[in-house]
This record gives sequence, structure tokens and C-alpha cells, in this order.
Amino acid sequence: MSHQTLPDQVDLVALTADLVRCASVTPEEGGALRLLERLLTAAGFDCSRVDRGGVCNLFARWGPKGAARSFGFNGHTDVVPVGDAAAWSVDPFGAEIRDGVLWGRGAVDMKSGVAAFVAAAVDFVRETPPESGAVVLAITGDEEGDAQDGTRALLDWMAAQGEAMSVCLVGEPTSPDHMGQMIKIGRRGSLSAFFTVRGVQGHAAYPHRACNPLPAMARLMDSLSTSNLDHGTDHFDPSTLAVVTIDTGNPATNVIPAETRSTVNIRYNDLHSGAALSDWLRQEAASVADTFGVQIDMEVKNSGEAFITPPGALSDLVAAAVTAVTGVTPELSTTGGTSDARFVKDHCPVVECGLVGKTMHQVDERVPVDDIAQLKAIYTRILSDYFAA
Amino acid sequence: MSHQTLPDQVDLVALTADLVRCASVTPEEGGALRLLERLLTAAGFDCSRVDRGGVCNLFARWGPKGAARSFGFNGHTDVVPVGDAAAWSVDPFGAEIRDGVLWGRGAVDMKSGVAAFVAAAVDFVRETPPESGAVVLAITGDEEGDAQDGTRALLDWMAAQGEAMSVCLVGEPTSPDHMGQMIKIGRRGSLSAFFTVRGVQGHAAYPHRACNPLPAMARLMDSLSTSNLDHGTDHFDPSTLAVVTIDTGNPATNVIPAETRSTVNIRYNDLHSGAALSDWLRQEAASVADTFGVQIDMEVKNSGEAFITPPGALSDLVAAAVTAVTGVTPELSTTGGTSDARFVKDHCPVVECGLVGKTMHQVDERVPVDDIAQLKAIYTRILSDYFAA
Repeated sequence: MSHQTLPDQVDLVALTADLVRCASVTPEEGGALRLLERLLTAAGFDCSRVDRGGVCNLFARWGPKGAARSFGFNGHTDVVPVGDAAAWSVDPFGAEIRDGVLWGRGAVDMKSGVAAFVAAAVDFVRETPPESGAVVLAITGDEEGDAQDGTRALLDWMAAQGEAMSVCLVGEPTSPDHMGQMIKIGRRGSLSAFFTVRGVQGHAAYPHRACNPLPAMARLMDSLSTSNLDHGTDHFDPSTLAVVTIDTGNPATNVIPAETRSTVNIRYNDLHSGAALSDWLRQEAASVADTFGVQIDMEVKNSGEAFITPPGALSDLVAAAVTAVTGVTPELSTTGGTSDARFVKDHCPVVECGLVGKTMHQVDERVPVDDIAQLKAIYTRILSDYFAA
Repeated sequence: MSHQTLPDQVDLVALTADLVRCASVTPEEGGALRLLERLLTAAGFDCSRVDRGGVCNLFARWGPKGAARSFGFNGHTDVVPVGDAAAWSVDPFGAEIRDGVLWGRGAVDMKSGVAAFVAAAVDFVRETPPESGAVVLAITGDEEGDAQDGTRALLDWMAAQGEAMSVCLVGEPTSPDHMGQMIKIGRRGSLSAFFTVRGVQGHAAYPHRACNPLPAMARLMDSLSTSNLDHGTDHFDPSTLAVVTIDTGNPATNVIPAETRSTVNIRYNDLHSGAALSDWLRQEAASVADTFGVQIDMEVKNSGEAFITPPGALSDLVAAAVTAVTGVTPELSTTGGTSDARFVKDHCPVVECGLVGKTMHQVDERVPVDDIAQLKAIYTRILSDYFAA
């Protein structure tokens, strides 16, 4: 391939703004992936659209397929809805820049992150192309939704095509307050359990003729929410369980309802598996059902098992780059919600490193343009250190 | 007044059917009270319409105001809605008679009861008028609704006018399965408490940054529903507490909600008062709020205190009449829901005696016409025994 056909160095802030202007609310592609595909193709990347189940995804590789050392970036261009549009100070898709701050849905989560690793990758392969190495970008349009046809589809397709990443960096926001503060080397698992307690409806004046499901529900939720799951592990906080809703919908004070429902969400560390937790919940429910003479059904949705890339070469590489650029030594953390790293971890070692997450998913989501530049500098440093090793 | 102007003896079944044909769903008068006012006026009763707050009520007295002995009947002509009209086998306001059974909304609760005491009273004063006694009928159009402007309005008006009843019989259905089985000499109190538990909303992945109101709600509902209020008294079953609904309305498994609500209904005997139970509930809530660091607000609606007319002259009179007519010795009970007897009890001794309640409030509400005749015979016997004493 000829380097004369390459475009100028990527204008990082303009690229971020162009991406924010694409109204790519999940599952809408919104033009974001097409924009990146044009840019990356022009920069010499082999691009493939990997669409599945109504979701658009983009795979891009610079360098030989099957390279011994292949550095991967993963991220998403889809965004959550704007919420109360009237509450925004700006057009959520206007990408307005005021006093050095870029405003808009996805400015933090995570169009800046995608722009930063795309710009870093393009500049890097233009200026110091790795010898016999590859840079892979796996970018999805479905991270904020079900995520069943997003990064999973990319990884499935890569496996089928013989494409691979040796290591991967997910560019999600990872710092609570300031740049460089935190990188993520794993994530807790997340499991939701949906309980239905069934009794027998009746008149509140004759409770002995009914079988009220609510005392059983109260006992089960009390029991679960006071259970100590563990005390944390070397790299993980203690697991947590939150009862997030109990609902019955009975408007009549003189009626004992036939059934009631609840949802429990567990964030669990590497001492647990989704299957073992499901078994435990089922036993707890069965015990309460037995005590109260009610029927308790449970459905489980396990969004992702706990995982960790133990501190080592990859986290050292990323942490050193963060410190070199920001002067801050990042904490290696496993806190927070879930991310597509839960899929990538089955493919290769993965860490997450990105912006400050404060305004993500909120009205007036925004990012200082200096932070975007700093993030690109971190990613550039990571690439050069990785291929220099 | 001249007895020559009196109408013929009342046709009991025709009167019941005429009343059922009035679509008097609370608060509609539907023509029912006007029909009774015409009939009773023609029969020599002094009638007064006592309307209040959009509700119609009828007061009727035969005999002198301020009589030393005045027998009162109380009942209502309003009915609950038909519910699923398509599910009825007949026109709910058609008053169809098939094989000796009269069908329609209000056939049991309680247009038959009103027809029976009106017919008994009219016949009684035509044939064996009490000397210096009075027969009072206090009939409301708001028993099935809020009941704030029904029997209460009648009693308020009576107090203001110097009208009185020495004793009163409420003609509500009282027997579970067969005629004569049960009369009610009191009722449990009914109190509903509405709880709101308030915490702090947050992300389910960071429960330590939120304050989840649901564990406190579960603990409070568990604690209340397992509390033993008492073991019953001479004339009352043990008091009961039913949690009737818990609602949160949080659809997001990753969000800890800010608040949740519940409703508890207590049916209480003569060991308790609404005020004392409210205090107890407030203390229980405060204790849980303290333990969990949440705010718990409570509103109380006390529909009626427990009351009893202890077994004695009135219940003996009614029970003897029931036995004479049906051959059955009635149980003196305080079970069941609430009725307007809870208001009458502040005015004079009161008992309730009426039909079999099985189909009340249901689709295909219906009554054997023989039962209506038997009920009228019971009421006639009560009147003659009362004034013979």
C-alpha cells in the first residue's frame, strides 16, 4: 500500500465533534461508523462491516492478519437517549464547544474515546508503523443496548475469519474525578433475579381464607438484602446485592392480592459465578416458599461473570503511559458497572482506560477538549511502548 | 290521618323488582328513593329527603316524633357497579325472575332487605299500629361509596331535628350459607395505613453511595405481618393485619430507587382503637427507619372503630324472630367487613340481620324470592314482638 494516499494527521477535536453530531442512539448507526470506515480505509486500514441483528459494527486492521503482536482497541459509537431534551443547556447532538469544553450526548461515553484511539492509531501507523505487528480496532454500535450483537458479533466474526488481538484496551471512561486516576483491570459480574411470589387472592377481612404472597416477599427480600456475600478479594470489593423493586399493583385496601413481583441485582466478585448465585437464590426462595406455603418462581439474567486480567504486563504498560502523560499513578480497579470488556476477556487480556466518567448518561454530558488530547497522547504512548517492547 | 287512604298491602317481590330496575349505582339515586318516598308517604309515613354532598337519603317515620319506643330500620338503595356486564347471564338491572330466583345487581345487597323492611313496616302499621310507638326507616343512597354523606347525614339530621330510634336493625346480608344462620351484633374496626419509605436513589453498582428504601420496607412489612395483635375476645375473632400492596415502579435493574410505598389493612377487635393502632404502627416504622437510616412517612385511614351491642334484649328479640320463622338458631357474630352499623352504634343499640350474602358484589347477584318473603316475615315478627313487650 502507498503512504502517499494517506490523509493528513487526524484533527482529533473535529473528529470527536463529527461523531457527536451523528445521532447514534442505540441501535441507530447514525452515520458514525460510516464516517470512521471512510477515515480508516483512507488511512490504510482493512475495514469490514460486521452487522448482525439490526446492529452495525466495524472491524479495522492495519498490518498483517495473524500478526504475532496485535494491539486491539475496543469501543462503541452508540449512545444512550438524551433523556429530557428540554433540560439540556445545548443541542445534545450539536457538539458545541464553549470555553474549551465539548458538549453533547456521547462526548464522554464514548465518542471522545473512539476518536482518541482512532486518531492515535492512524497517526501511529503513519509515522512509526510497527514491523510485522498489527493494530486492530473493534468498534460496535451496540454497547448501551442488549449488547448481544455488538462486540460479541465482532469477536464471533474475528474467530471465524482468523482475526485476533494479542491484547486489548477498551476506551470506556474509567476515572471518577480526574484524568489518569483509575484504570480497570476487571469487572464484577452482574446478575438480576426476577421473583414472582404467588398465593391466593382474598378479602382483607378474611385473611385465613386467602394466602397472602406479600409477607413471604417481605421475608425473602429482608433475608437476601441482609446476606453477607463475602468480604472482598485481592482485587475486588465485597459483592453487593440490591433489591431494586417490589411491585404488586393492588389498589384495593380490602383485597389480599394473588401475586407480587420483585427484582434483585447482584454485583459479584471472583469468589462467585452466576450459576452458583442462581442456585443460592433458588434455595433461599424455596426455603421461604416452604415456610409461608406460597409458590415462588425465579428468572435469572446473568449479564456477565466477574473477570480480571491480573496485574502484569498489560496493566503495567497502560499505567506507565498514563503516568508519563498525566503525572498521576492510576489505581488498578475492578469497580463500577459492566462493559464490553466482559466479552473481550474471553478473547485476550483486556484493560480499560479512558476519560473521567462524571457526566456520562446525564443531561449536559461534556468533556474538556484538553482531556481528549491527553487521552490520545496516552493511547499513542501505549502503542509505541507496546511495539517497542 | 285516615287509614282509608292507605294503599293495598305491599307486593314484596314487585317492590324488590322495581327497586332493582333503578340503576342506583353509588352515588346515583336512580329513582329508588323517590319510589320509596311515594310508597311510604301514601302509607302514612312522614318522609323527609335528607340530601347532602350530592348524595340522596330518605328519612321516614310512622307514629309520633319523640315516641318513648321507636324501632328503626337502616339500609341502602345504592349498589356497586355491575363489573363485567358481558359476563352477566341477565340484564343486571332487569330484575328477571327465573324459577323463583330474582336476578340483578342489588338483589342481595340490599334492595331485597330494604323492600322487606319497608313492606313489613307498612303492613305492620296498617294492621297492628303500635300505641304511642314509632317506626323509623333511615335509608341511604351512599353505603357502597365513601359513606360520608349517607347514614351519617341521616343521623346528623335526626339529631338536629330531635328524631330518634330506640333500637335499630340494619338489613344487610348477614348469613354465609343459609337463611337464619347468623346475625351481627358488632363489627371489627378497619384501619388502613399507607407507608412511604424514602432513601436516596443511586446506581445498583454503587450501593454504598445510595440509600435503598427497599430493605427497610421489607423489614417493616415482615415485622408487621408477623406481629400477633391479640388472641380474640369474648365476642370477637383475633385481630388481623394484611399487607395488601408494596409498590416501587422501578423498571431499571441497575438503579436503586429513591422511594417505595405499601399499604397495610388491619381488622381489629374491641381490644384496640384506631388511635392506639396508629401509634403502634408509627413506633414500628420509626424503629425500622432508625435501623436503616431512611425516612418513613405514614398516613392512616380509620374506616371505623370496633364496636359491639352486647348480647341482650335486642339480640334476643331478633334471634327469637329468626328462630320462629326459619327454625334456625342464629349465631351472634362480629365477623366480616364494615357496614353502616358503625355509624348507628353511636345513636342506639344496633344489630344486623338479613339475607344470605353469597352472591353480593358478584356477577349474577341473585336471591330466591322465598328468602325475601322469609326476611319480611322475620322483620314483621320483630316489630310485633318489640311493641308487644
